[in-house]
Amino acid sequence: MEFELIARDPETGARAGLLHTDHGTIETPIFMPVGTVGSVKAVMQEQLVDTVKAQIILGNTYHLYLRPGTDILEQAGGLHRFNGWDKPILTDSGGYQVFSLSSNRKLKEEGALFQSHIDGSRHLFTPENVMDIQRSIGADIVMAFDECTPYPCDYRYAQQSMELTHRWLARCMKRFSETEPKYGYSQSLFPIVQGSTYKDLRTQSAEFAAGMEADGNAIGGLSVGEPEQDMYEMCALVCDILPREKPRYLMGVGTPWNILECIGLGVDMFDCVMPTRNGRNGMLFTTEGVVNIKNKRWADDFSPIDPGLEDGPSTVYTRAYLRHLFAASEILGLQLASLQNLSFYLHLVKEARRHIIAGDFGAWRREMLEIVKRRL
Amino acid sequence: MEFELIARDPETGARAGLLHTDHGTIETPIFMPVGTVGSVKAVMQEQLVDTVKAQIILGNTYHLYLRPGTDILEQAGGLHRFNGWDKPILTDSGGYQVFSLSSNRKLKEEGALFQSHIDGSRHLFTPENVMDIQRSIGADIVMAFDECTPYPCDYRYAQQSMELTHRWLARCMKRFSETEPKYGYSQSLFPIVQGSTYKDLRTQSAEFAAGMEADGNAIGGLSVGEPEQDMYEMCALVCDILPREKPRYLMGVGTPWNILECIGLGVDMFDCVMPTRNGRNGMLFTTEGVVNIKNKRWADDFSPIDPGLEDGPSTVYTRAYLRHLFAASEILGLQLASLQNLSFYLHLVKEARRHIIAGDFGAWRREMLEIVKRRL
Repeated sequence: MEFELIARDPETGARAGLLHTDHGTIETPIFMPVGTVGSVKAVMQEQLVDTVKAQIILGNTYHLYLRPGTDILEQAGGLHRFNGWDKPILTDSGGYQVFSLSSNRKLKEEGALFQSHIDGSRHLFTPENVMDIQRSIGADIVMAFDECTPYPCDYRYAQQSMELTHRWLARCMKRFSETEPKYGYSQSLFPIVQGSTYKDLRTQSAEFAAGMEADGNAIGGLSVGEPEQDMYEMCALVCDILPREKPRYLMGVGTPWNILECIGLGVDMFDCVMPTRNGRNGMLFTTEGVVNIKNKRWADDFSPIDPGLEDGPSTVYTRAYLRHLFAASEILGLQLASLQNLSFYLHLVKEARRHIIAGDFGAWRREMLEIVKRRL
Repeated sequence: MEFELIARDPETGARAGLLHTDHGTIETPIFMPVGTVGSVKAVMQEQLVDTVKAQIILGNTYHLYLRPGTDILEQAGGLHRFNGWDKPILTDSGGYQVFSLSSNRKLKEEGALFQSHIDGSRHLFTPENVMDIQRSIGADIVMAFDECTPYPCDYRYAQQSMELTHRWLARCMKRFSETEPKYGYSQSLFPIVQGSTYKDLRTQSAEFAAGMEADGNAIGGLSVGEPEQDMYEMCALVCDILPREKPRYLMGVGTPWNILECIGLGVDMFDCVMPTRNGRNGMLFTTEGVVNIKNKRWADDFSPIDPGLEDGPSTVYTRAYLRHLFAASEILGLQLASLQNLSFYLHLVKEARRHIIAGDFGAWRREMLEIVKRRL
């Protein structure tokens, strides 16, 4: 994997780059749609390419390990072959899911013991086997196994957790370096910076991650309930420490305005379930602002879902029709809302990139922040 | 509307035709995907055109009248404009839904009083207002308002019900002839033949319908629980009476083998929720037979969903992946299964048409009946 920085915004920390992987080149800053169990919910892979213009999607180690399992994924020849997505994939390590989804989890130095949320079966995730599982999944970018602290989190716990995450990181790096990719293309491991909302811990953790000299670095443990200002402050602090010549990935963030702010802080990669999950609940992100499509006011609005997008279903189907689909609980409503939101997110980062390259990202962002937060 | 018969099978009653409407020409025999509330469940309109190769879809008067309502549909400029489907549409009259979905329905000479299954509100459907509603929906083909008798049904009730349906039909024809289409293209009204499984009633009803000299005729009240042989017998009897030069539409039928049999009896048009509904339950109809995709045996089958189709997602996604999507309750599973089943149904009628024109429909059908009934 190679990261090529091609432009820096003169006013903010924003950068535009090219991330070269064996499954193709990703233009950064980029948003990565979340395909937890190997499918971006309600969206076909063809649509991710043609309509959404996604360049990389996420998978999740915890989910894919439980179902379909590494046996099946290996027989298929990896996740790309299994789900028919031949562009880059990033897999989250499963640390977050062990703590948010499974029951009876127990944290030990060795790893995390947990019971499956599906059938209650018992499993142990260690830094080593999580690397092995991600080798079997075959993502282009794999994440270190970490503990994601909740918010709020007292200092003592945040510190101990961070230290454990660091020890686990060292073990991940070791195991990863001792093993080979399984499907003939290379994989890169990203460390995850933790440290809750404590500046000194975040500093320590960013320095520790940077010291690993990995192909890229991730910032975890944010957007977990803390005030937005805290998130921005931590993100800024960490971005200043992480190496400039490596891609920076802010995990699980966020709203369109969060993304615009954090691009300005120097983040290159984002993922979030918000566009798909909120879409399925009728919340649309558009080039004109936020739309609650269930609202009665859209019943006779025959304008396109999002006239500001270039092509695709959002410029064809009307708000009145989409509102009707939600009122009638039609699956097509979930499909169209997911397509709209993902298309908008990808449009937003593409525009951000264009303005970074043009040198007017700062001014453009001020304008966009007004628009994307607006409630229609 | 004009119907052009272009070929007759020498061995069976099968015919190939062209049904010209103001929204384009339909090649018969044809299967019509069901889009009850203005959306074929889990399938986008673009996919109906590009993947499924649908030529006409159904809407339902009962559902569309209740939601979004004729006001909205009129403001939109009709259902085609509302849902973005610009090929032909047929609307069922709502008679069937009043009896299967609503509560507290009361049948009177005037019409049917019922309570909405959505909010309990009270409504009256009459032959006259059902014509008016279908004028507002703007389907290319609209159906007469009828009572669909259940199975089994005693002779006395079947006879009285049929007679009421005939009186209603006369009122429908009158109202329809006295009103104009609302959106600048023409609409055709099809009578519906009833009479349960009684030969003399079916004969009477077919003769009554034929006497209306409508643009086409429909056969209702079949596939409601009667043995398949009874359905075929009634269908054969009615097809013999209905005019040869008009399209014949068998309502709500059926399985792939039902369709093959009834094409051989002279039916030109079919609709059924089976491909989409059963698809959403994991039952796939393929060119190789019937697949229960939830079955464990597909977990490591990396062959395409249906290698026998020409292109589209069914030739790209694997059975193992689709099985995984169902196991994980992913929406994409519903989408792919619906696409597969509809693509197969349209493939089947297209092949039937090709063989009717080639003159070997009978032999081809014998072969296909074996295949489509096979459980894989």
